Amino acid sequence: MGKLVRVNMTKKEINIEPLPEKYIGKGGRWLTSMMISDEVPALCHPLGPNNKLVFAPGIVSGTRAPNSGRISVGGKSPLTGGIKESNAGTSFVQKMARMGYSALVLEGLPEEENCLMLKLTVDGGELIPADDLRGKGTYECAGMIWDKFGEKTSFCLIGPAGEAKMAMAGIAFNDPEGRSSRYAARGGLGAVMGSKGLKAIVLDDSGAPGVEPKDPEAFKEGQKKLAQAIMKHDVTKKGGALNSFGTAVLINILNEAGGLPTRNFRSGVFEGAAKISGEALAEAAEKRGGAGMMGHSCHPGCIIHCSNVYAREDGSEHVSCVEYESAWSLGANCGIDNLDHVAELVRLCNDMGLDTIEAGGMLGVAMEAGLAEFGDGPKAIELLKEIGKGSPLGHILGQGTQFTGEAYGVTRIPTVKRQSMPAYEPRAVKGIGVTYATSTMGADHTAGYTIAPEILAVGGKADPLSKKDKVGLSKAFQQTTAFIDAAGYCLFIAFPILDISSGFDGMVQTVNAMVGTNYTGDDVTRIGDEILRLEHDFNLQAGIGKEADRMPEFMTYEKLPPHDVVWDVTDEELDAFWEK
Amino acid sequence: MGKLVRVNMTKKEINIEPLPEKYIGKGGRWLTSMMISDEVPALCHPLGPNNKLVFAPGIVSGTRAPNSGRISVGGKSPLTGGIKESNAGTSFVQKMARMGYSALVLEGLPEEENCLMLKLTVDGGELIPADDLRGKGTYECAGMIWDKFGEKTSFCLIGPAGEAKMAMAGIAFNDPEGRSSRYAARGGLGAVMGSKGLKAIVLDDSGAPGVEPKDPEAFKEGQKKLAQAIMKHDVTKKGGALNSFGTAVLINILNEAGGLPTRNFRSGVFEGAAKISGEALAEAAEKRGGAGMMGHSCHPGCIIHCSNVYAREDGSEHVSCVEYESAWSLGANCGIDNLDHVAELVRLCNDMGLDTIEAGGMLGVAMEAGLAEFGDGPKAIELLKEIGKGSPLGHILGQGTQFTGEAYGVTRIPTVKRQSMPAYEPRAVKGIGVTYATSTMGADHTAGYTIAPEILAVGGKADPLSKKDKVGLSKAFQQTTAFIDAAGYCLFIAFPILDISSGFDGMVQTVNAMVGTNYTGDDVTRIGDEILRLEHDFNLQAGIGKEADRMPEFMTYEKLPPHDVVWDVTDEELDAFWEK
Repeated sequence: MGKLVRVNMTKKEINIEPLPEKYIGKGGRWLTSMMISDEVPALCHPLGPNNKLVFAPGIVSGTRAPNSGRISVGGKSPLTGGIKESNAGTSFVQKMARMGYSALVLEGLPEEENCLMLKLTVDGGELIPADDLRGKGTYECAGMIWDKFGEKTSFCLIGPAGEAKMAMAGIAFNDPEGRSSRYAARGGLGAVMGSKGLKAIVLDDSGAPGVEPKDPEAFKEGQKKLAQAIMKHDVTKKGGALNSFGTAVLINILNEAGGLPTRNFRSGVFEGAAKISGEALAEAAEKRGGAGMMGHSCHPGCIIHCSNVYAREDGSEHVSCVEYESAWSLGANCGIDNLDHVAELVRLCNDMGLDTIEAGGMLGVAMEAGLAEFGDGPKAIELLKEIGKGSPLGHILGQGTQFTGEAYGVTRIPTVKRQSMPAYEPRAVKGIGVTYATSTMGADHTAGYTIAPEILAVGGKADPLSKKDKVGLSKAFQQTTAFIDAAGYCLFIAFPILDISSGFDGMVQTVNAMVGTNYTGDDVTRIGDEILRLEHDFNLQAGIGKEADRMPEFMTYEKLPPHDVVWDVTDEELDAFWEK
Repeated sequence: MGKLVRVNMTKKEINIEPLPEKYIGKGGRWLTSMMISDEVPALCHPLGPNNKLVFAPGIVSGTRAPNSGRISVGGKSPLTGGIKESNAGTSFVQKMARMGYSALVLEGLPEEENCLMLKLTVDGGELIPADDLRGKGTYECAGMIWDKFGEKTSFCLIGPAGEAKMAMAGIAFNDPEGRSSRYAARGGLGAVMGSKGLKAIVLDDSGAPGVEPKDPEAFKEGQKKLAQAIMKHDVTKKGGALNSFGTAVLINILNEAGGLPTRNFRSGVFEGAAKISGEALAEAAEKRGGAGMMGHSCHPGCIIHCSNVYAREDGSEHVSCVEYESAWSLGANCGIDNLDHVAELVRLCNDMGLDTIEAGGMLGVAMEAGLAEFGDGPKAIELLKEIGKGSPLGHILGQGTQFTGEAYGVTRIPTVKRQSMPAYEPRAVKGIGVTYATSTMGADHTAGYTIAPEILAVGGKADPLSKKDKVGLSKAFQQTTAFIDAAGYCLFIAFPILDISSGFDGMVQTVNAMVGTNYTGDDVTRIGDEILRLEHDFNLQAGIGKEADRMPEFMTYEKLPPHDVVWDVTDEELDAFWEK
């Protein structure tokens, strides 16, 4: 049975207790959202003593199920003011699960400012002074952690942005080579960790008991079905779209569809798209050689390998990895078509501990406010560095897109619930707009990725420009996603399981075999819905009601080229999302 | 019958139309809140094309009724995101009413940035280029306006903060001597005016028809009853508390009661209170002589004269006026006990076009964040000047208390609905806390001044430390206040009319005689309640629900010296405020 680690940062006490009955069989987002709902007052200050930060492996994390290495982090978000779950792919979660820890809860605030590190072993935990890491970038810290604790440890940590409690700060987890590059990025949970005076968590899994499914045979069978589906689907197979070009394969596709937000959402087409595309990344990896590579993976057990390492012209490593979202946010959205500039911006985000989506959204708004010209990469780099300096400008930019817009009186701010929109124009792809508007997380594509049928013809086909049936579509996607986030699977298994029913069955079977349940496909929807409503209730109590389930006003009256479309899903249609 | 002036800033068109039927007989806050509710989409961007700014004289403004020279300005607030009415005492309103203008509505946004001035005469209006005023402080602009249009004109204008669309920006109206010192300060309406590209409004009332009550005899009688009550009451009479010491007479009184928020609401007692008190102001006026004076008034027809002019050591004018709220916010709340520093901070606020309450609240939080030491007047002056410079730091500070706290991760932010609390500690004076929490305006003492019975023994007596019956008390005060704000009377008539029933009757009688109604005392409550619910409905539609009717979390767990009290009014008790 799993254990629950409670770390009280006021008393500097660590307690390890059996996982309470009600949480058994839960995991990932299901567990973090339950615990936050149960233990955090919805109206508390996100950086105050009553917020908590919960880390939870998914239900099947730590097993050999493919792509199951996602960790969920939950808390009340300093960015949105609502509940937040943010997840990342990393060996950290696999170690944590194998050590028998079902959840880790950080609570309380230190009475004096300090900088500590939490070290967890199978025998318990220890808070260690980490003053040598204070104020340092995540790359340097990651190196210091492996130097000190060995390369077999896994870790997570925050950068200077999290220490400064900025709402754009994420939590970095190690990748297989020890880079601090896998992010639970969204919603400012790094600031919550910073408010608690914790710079890093290190896991030493020596002697870990490992995880054993309740029904190992059935598990193996489910695992096989899922793996086969992943390896068969065009999007996820070896040599498929994601494997060959990374997630940035989407740049040209969205640009083609007129749905690639460009220059702070002024157009759906970017003339420089090809230069920052997945194809361009693959070409650079090929041409420049050296450290550059496509087909990198974020955690052991991944069989998709959509990550990459981007190399400088001389072949030395620049950054891992340039995702679609980052290439878009720091590229097209800023009018920047230079991959080296984009890579440097990503590297800075990783090092300072920032969400790249929020960073690019923020830079777009900063450009709109006149702080830089659209397309000026070097100036964008300069602006981003202000965050690390902690200058007044850095304190504006570090709080994100909405905040930066407000500081400069900008009316075109592409956010929902104060969270920056990702790389899909909601006016041109209505279903994803419904997801942005209604998600409990704020604007978030991963909450209900209707792009699959709207753009990629995966899981059916839907006209992106039409709003017809999009509320139902988004709802179905959000429900299933919540279940996947609970299971600990990478969201990209959605592509194969949408199209290949044995893959879906395999996914459900692994969960059932793991915890001894008999969930059916209907249960996936039911449980997903339960998670969403739990989160929605928290938000309602936090004062985030249906009036926050709205697109930014400018999208309702400003026509987006090239389709000259506005956001036309009505308030009533959106409100139907939460009807039972 | 009154006229309605519509100024479309997109088309640069001015239309003068008869006041629509439904608005006849309304005025001040009643009229602005009705028009905003009717015409402004609750979820619009406050600085976008769909917000409007409404100026409306009170029902009896322009008459000879005592202290009736208050103008209401309404709009959707860039600070709170909710509806806003902010009012000021000035001859501007008297001229506007006598010219026959019942309301002036600014709508639309200019397509290109520009800086215009609106000149209104009895014959119509004209938009005039005002590039010579652009970026200039309000004092210099005020002088230029009188130089150009003559000293018989009245005006209102915004400072550099309003032009930069900062959420702390107010709208300055002229005082009798042409100072830009009478502010509709709260809620950032100056930023709305700035977003519309309007720097100033000038009124030339040559040939104004004047206002005539429907029943002149009854009006005169009511006016007399009210004037007699004002002149009889200890607080408002000639040589009384307000006349002798200004509103700052409250400094020592609140300090004595342990309710003077000190150093960002860390204590209810300020050891330097006496040095920034009304008594100290009066002493300085006496000692320094020259321009300094107590008993100044904000508009002709005021018979209380609570304003003042503060002189420098050499007798030259420093600023008018040092109000209680300003002496507190820029004094005690910042730990500053030097009146010359306080006066300079007030002067800077007036010149840049800032709300002094929000400015002092912001400085307190900035000091909490470590940007200055509490008590450091010169550094506070330096910080405030950043706003005028438009530096990144200025763009933080200019957005107010909540924003500044968020920029620096501060958890002790004394705001409600993002608006800075005024000069009364809600933990030590519970009734005013209920007003802060429930007011549609955000934290606002003028919305329901329960200080009268809780501290001043006016209108009965109530224990400030007890929460008993305070929701009902605040409700009664808020209802009556809304009526007074509709009538156009100065809120200070509340002192005499609470204690002297003929004064109350006189107030109601002037309104009835003015517009031909038969309102009774019950109607005062009913109409006040109607106004409040209209505003509340707007806020609900803007997503500001009961979860926003709350005190900052820290006040619920941090004990306030010297009484060691926390905020203990429950959520349920607060929610009862809006029950019918």
